[in-house]
Amino acid sequence: MIKQPEFSMEPWSLRESELMLDRLAQTESVFALSNGHIGWRGNLDEGEPHGLPGSYLNGVYEIRPLPFAEQVYGRPTTGQTVINVVNGKLMRLSVDDEPFDVRYGRLVAHERVLDFRSGLLTRRAEWVSPAGGSVRVTSARLVSFTNRAVAAICYEVEPIEQRLQISVQSELLANEQLPDSDGDPRAAAVLQHPLDAEFDSAFDQAVVLVHRTRTSALRIGAAMDHHIDAPGDVQTDVRSFPDGGLVTATTVLKPGQRLRIIKFVAYGWSSTRSLPAVRDQVWASLSGARLAGWDGLVAGQRAYLEDFWDRADVQVDGDVEIQQAVRFGLFHVLQAGARGEDRAIPAKGLTGPGYDGHVFWDTESFVLPVLTFTAPDAAASALRWRHSTLPAARERAAQLGLHGAAFPWRTIAGQECSGYWPAGTAAFHINADIADAVTRYVDATGDEEFEHGTGMELLVDTARLFRSLGHHDDAGQFHIDGVTGPDEYSAIADDNVFTNLMAQQNLAAAAAVAAKYMDRARELDVSVEESASWRDAAAAMFIPYDEALGVHPQAARFTQHQRWDFDATPPDQYPLLLHYPYFDLYRKQVVKQADLVLAMLTRGDAFTAEQKRRNFDYYEAITVRDSSLSASIQAVIAGEVGHLDLAFDYLAEAALMDLDDLEHNTRDGVHIASLAGTWMALVGGFGGLRHAGRVVAFAPRLPEGIRRLAFSLLVRGRRLRVEVTHESARYQLVNGEPLDVSHHGETLTLAATHPQERLIPSVTSRPPPSQPAGRRPARRLTTEDST
Amino acid sequence: MIKQPEFSMEPWSLRESELMLDRLAQTESVFALSNGHIGWRGNLDEGEPHGLPGSYLNGVYEIRPLPFAEQVYGRPTTGQTVINVVNGKLMRLSVDDEPFDVRYGRLVAHERVLDFRSGLLTRRAEWVSPAGGSVRVTSARLVSFTNRAVAAICYEVEPIEQRLQISVQSELLANEQLPDSDGDPRAAAVLQHPLDAEFDSAFDQAVVLVHRTRTSALRIGAAMDHHIDAPGDVQTDVRSFPDGGLVTATTVLKPGQRLRIIKFVAYGWSSTRSLPAVRDQVWASLSGARLAGWDGLVAGQRAYLEDFWDRADVQVDGDVEIQQAVRFGLFHVLQAGARGEDRAIPAKGLTGPGYDGHVFWDTESFVLPVLTFTAPDAAASALRWRHSTLPAARERAAQLGLHGAAFPWRTIAGQECSGYWPAGTAAFHINADIADAVTRYVDATGDEEFEHGTGMELLVDTARLFRSLGHHDDAGQFHIDGVTGPDEYSAIADDNVFTNLMAQQNLAAAAAVAAKYMDRARELDVSVEESASWRDAAAAMFIPYDEALGVHPQAARFTQHQRWDFDATPPDQYPLLLHYPYFDLYRKQVVKQADLVLAMLTRGDAFTAEQKRRNFDYYEAITVRDSSLSASIQAVIAGEVGHLDLAFDYLAEAALMDLDDLEHNTRDGVHIASLAGTWMALVGGFGGLRHAGRVVAFAPRLPEGIRRLAFSLLVRGRRLRVEVTHESARYQLVNGEPLDVSHHGETLTLAATHPQERLIPSVTSRPPPSQPAGRRPARRLTTEDST
Repeated sequence: MIKQPEFSMEPWSLRESELMLDRLAQTESVFALSNGHIGWRGNLDEGEPHGLPGSYLNGVYEIRPLPFAEQVYGRPTTGQTVINVVNGKLMRLSVDDEPFDVRYGRLVAHERVLDFRSGLLTRRAEWVSPAGGSVRVTSARLVSFTNRAVAAICYEVEPIEQRLQISVQSELLANEQLPDSDGDPRAAAVLQHPLDAEFDSAFDQAVVLVHRTRTSALRIGAAMDHHIDAPGDVQTDVRSFPDGGLVTATTVLKPGQRLRIIKFVAYGWSSTRSLPAVRDQVWASLSGARLAGWDGLVAGQRAYLEDFWDRADVQVDGDVEIQQAVRFGLFHVLQAGARGEDRAIPAKGLTGPGYDGHVFWDTESFVLPVLTFTAPDAAASALRWRHSTLPAARERAAQLGLHGAAFPWRTIAGQECSGYWPAGTAAFHINADIADAVTRYVDATGDEEFEHGTGMELLVDTARLFRSLGHHDDAGQFHIDGVTGPDEYSAIADDNVFTNLMAQQNLAAAAAVAAKYMDRARELDVSVEESASWRDAAAAMFIPYDEALGVHPQAARFTQHQRWDFDATPPDQYPLLLHYPYFDLYRKQVVKQADLVLAMLTRGDAFTAEQKRRNFDYYEAITVRDSSLSASIQAVIAGEVGHLDLAFDYLAEAALMDLDDLEHNTRDGVHIASLAGTWMALVGGFGGLRHAGRVVAFAPRLPEGIRRLAFSLLVRGRRLRVEVTHESARYQLVNGEPLDVSHHGETLTLAATHPQERLIPSVTSRPPPSQPAGRRPARRLTTEDST
Repeated sequence: MIKQPEFSMEPWSLRESELMLDRLAQTESVFALSNGHIGWRGNLDEGEPHGLPGSYLNGVYEIRPLPFAEQVYGRPTTGQTVINVVNGKLMRLSVDDEPFDVRYGRLVAHERVLDFRSGLLTRRAEWVSPAGGSVRVTSARLVSFTNRAVAAICYEVEPIEQRLQISVQSELLANEQLPDSDGDPRAAAVLQHPLDAEFDSAFDQAVVLVHRTRTSALRIGAAMDHHIDAPGDVQTDVRSFPDGGLVTATTVLKPGQRLRIIKFVAYGWSSTRSLPAVRDQVWASLSGARLAGWDGLVAGQRAYLEDFWDRADVQVDGDVEIQQAVRFGLFHVLQAGARGEDRAIPAKGLTGPGYDGHVFWDTESFVLPVLTFTAPDAAASALRWRHSTLPAARERAAQLGLHGAAFPWRTIAGQECSGYWPAGTAAFHINADIADAVTRYVDATGDEEFEHGTGMELLVDTARLFRSLGHHDDAGQFHIDGVTGPDEYSAIADDNVFTNLMAQQNLAAAAAVAAKYMDRARELDVSVEESASWRDAAAAMFIPYDEALGVHPQAARFTQHQRWDFDATPPDQYPLLLHYPYFDLYRKQVVKQADLVLAMLTRGDAFTAEQKRRNFDYYEAITVRDSSLSASIQAVIAGEVGHLDLAFDYLAEAALMDLDDLEHNTRDGVHIASLAGTWMALVGGFGGLRHAGRVVAFAPRLPEGIRRLAFSLLVRGRRLRVEVTHESARYQLVNGEPLDVSHHGETLTLAATHPQERLIPSVTSRPPPSQPAGRRPARRLTTEDST
């Protein structure tokens, strides 16, 4: 089967050569621009048609009721939902009084390109109006990495054949009309008109607006200013309204002449600062944008990205589509985390309203592994955000009768927003995932200041949680009962292996830092007895094992449960959660997403190689991948246990999640974790990167479809470059003090600029495992094979 | 501690000697009248003040949205809620233009009496109006057992000291204003104005109204007519409105003279019949009431009850409060079931809106055991109602991917209305409870026509459910995973012993009837292979047992869980579900209500005497009785295992649930199951009644607090009378063919009118078990001891 990609395969950009009106919402997500602070979906400049308009500010949300049929203690009664803030993207065009709208007239050409090196989304359109006037529109858009509060647009129009009156309206629009949602009507009402106007002002070619959300009481400022350039007279005016502002520029152009408008947009928000403070803040940001100018912003953008690619690029020879996808993924991961600056990295970044804009464990378990080695400051920033929510997490733990901190399953500002506790609150592993991200970050960067401050407090509070969550049995073994692991097709089980292993590591890590920083331990009221109790619980942690089958049950009793009847499950019944009740999914052997298999990645030290092989094959047969968090992990472990072709298939599934819209929900935003998973599948699966403790270990091995894999990592401030072919791997320390790495178990001490090369040991291929009927991943034909 | 009862202790009535305004809602529930078809709360005649006005028709409900925070497959999106229909109880009085309202003027005397033998609620009040006019008001009210659609009031007023103008307004009122609820505002809106007016007419002294519910589209008729009697001229008029009707009678009376108004009220409803049909139906019922007249209705009521008490009375010598309570309980159980006629028996009967008017497993497991032996027609009727909901239960099973029928956890009309599936849908034991009620009814009555028809279909469909719900393991044992047993502080566990034992019985019973009625089996498509598969699953049913502790775990792994920290749980934190999250309750050893202990009653044959003793003591220490369904069952098994004093304590707790408002929610209606449990505690606990198969077994043994216990049972059409003292038990067959009974294991063949007496074997008392800190039941001081 030769598939027809929507986007042309190019190594450094994503190009749509023809406007696909039926996939508008998906392309708005993949073409979204963000710097982690501001997010602009890739909506057309003129606003309409749209799939879903969206402009977001990280941390800006409204509170909505979380309805419930029966009252339950501890269930949150309100939730937080990302809102569409003031739309600053709008550039409406009229051609001889005909509004430019691609649905009318004739669209002769239309191209959009997202360039991963320039960070610009550019668009070129040729359009003939219903009245016959033909124009060429060229626009470029950026959300600045250097000027965090700023986005900008360069919009150009020229007549093609005849003299035309051209009018461009640059707009700020609050409370933009959204497509109807099919959810709770009360919630929809909140989101349809989230902003109360507080201030608006217009002067020269600039507009400033200040709004406020009703319940969350966040104050949001937005401002725009313009440079307008045209050969002849330009009639301009400016206006503001409570819900918007408008700069109109009108001129008459001949073919060869061009109207060019540079638009600078600045945003700011605060939960505490006054109206004048927020207004002045956005004005200052706008002033900074004007100072840099369009060319300055463009140059800054390119420089920022050049620096990023220099340390983070992954080269994949032999499969141009995967090459494109991993860069696309890294670009979006960077966009999600670059300038969050102590804010969360939501599951969709700032590319859409999916999952209400919530952050989940995805951040710590999928996104931070990538950022830790490629943009460590962004990883630290995301963990500082978690740390800032400790008061809410401690309150939640107390409400649940537990010690320490219980971080929320889903949230924007730190409060639990999950309305379904068996798959929310009960998934306590998120706390160990946060601790794991702390340990990984500290190991990879050696950032002891972070460890001593933010890191240690996160480790201590999560260790306290697990110590109070579990209990010893008569034989002295430590159990954690009634919790939910990563697999959302099981819930409320005893001794989930992933949770227990991660908690074990969490408890041990907390005890270790308490011993390392004794002053700080005293500040945090960690007594010797308390840290001893963590060490003891970690040592006594019970890990169930099914001797008869020779595999680890995902949780106690799991392997005794009935196996899901996959043969009787038609393909159109996936994802199963939309067609079968949780009660049935929970009590049978069917796995939504890597759980035990994920444990073999994050706690690989707890399994023998033989156990890994047996476990992988066992779970492979019952894992349906109804979650976007599964394929990348399966790729990594498939690679480790020697199923290289299967790993390649899973890599492709993770990599193309959004480009091919595999789960049919990219419209709501891209899957940041799956995009990060592309990197994990390549670097972890085929590079074999593992980061247990201070030694960075590799066990590279390539599948048939990849000729050469090259990537760079930042390790304790030094840049490490790895190149892998089928025959050998080459390790090069680009700078800094010598560094120990491991190659298939052999330790190499690398000195700067002295690369070392090692052969790749051969592997005897094993028979491929089976997947549930109809759930085998698409067999990856490499791009070269298929052409 | 000498307790101060609210009601005086009388063997045959419940008397309130002084109006307790602060307990109005509770008394409205305990004084509620019903015949199983119509329910009138014990509201004051004049309507106000009230705790909660209520007039109900069995089966009349409105549909309301069941909100949800996150969509889940199979979760019902709408629920059914009992509504307050047309209030026909209202009799407003004016004395010289001052409205009679107990909150104003001076209430000199006020007495309300519910008489268990007459079935009348009578009231006597002496009141001095703010203007000084003093009157005596006497009213009597009945909801007719003989005329199912009819209720009636006899209302009398006389001046005490001076000549007064007396005006009485008899009213029908639809969409009565209710106190604000604190629930979902959309649901409240539905319930505040549930009736759309379709028809109203007034003539002579009669009014007819027809209304319809908006979404459930049920048409409801209500009519009233009057006999008005006074010595002098009476000015009367009659009016009707869309939402009501009013007959006003005004006269002037001297002391010694009396205005007497007999009010007949008739109700009817239909989901299918036309407006004229419903209107005419209530008119016919009203005509029947007029034909009988007040005296005829009163006489019919007394005769009906005389017949009931003759076969159902329980005499308790030595404790007058328990004597009163068991009759109060039987009276309410009769009221709930007497004339339901193929309708449900809701958890609150028709005494209040608690639990939305839903029926639960309480009916089959608590109410039908009593009705089966005292009013078997009512038991059959309730089971026929279940049978009538088979289409909905089959649809639900199919939706859940199961065979046969999955009856709803809570419902009015048959559709699942539970919004929280771990304690709703997952509690599949309700299906086996229904099957158990069928088997018990057939065993006790010998009603083979029922068995062949309704009974067999219920057995077959529930057996099909369990066969598809469970699975065999490698060793051939049959397991039922991921279900919730009776204890609501555990959920979604594997191999719940109660569920497995009840399913085992259900499967075996279905296989047995399939063999007994082979023609009918063919009609129901039961093949030989299918019934063999039931027999096989029943035989292979796995029952977990903890060898180390020597007790049955309530479900797999239960006894390995951490024990709840009862010592750290302050008394004001009960019921626990209001103060602790389900996640924590579920994963620890804490039991809300009898679960394994209930299994020892319903499947006593599956446990040795030694196991029963050990199990009872084990669960006693972790059972907190946060449910009204617990004390009665604990009483029965405490009696069996020899803790007679403890059984007596639990009997009292069950018996006084509503009279003493032990759970502070009697305002929403009486606890029919707990009231039935009083009978179970006495007859099952101290009479030792067990009904396994065709032999009715007794193992009587009295606690100190009871001198003599006497009760009657209907067994296969014959009346059996049992009298128990501390020394001996006397068994008498009042009529019919000889009957085998068992006394402490000895079989006696009873012939009519030849009583047999046997000594009661002595029992060595065992040390009493402990309860969780602060949860020991109140030590029962007998009424005689305490005076």
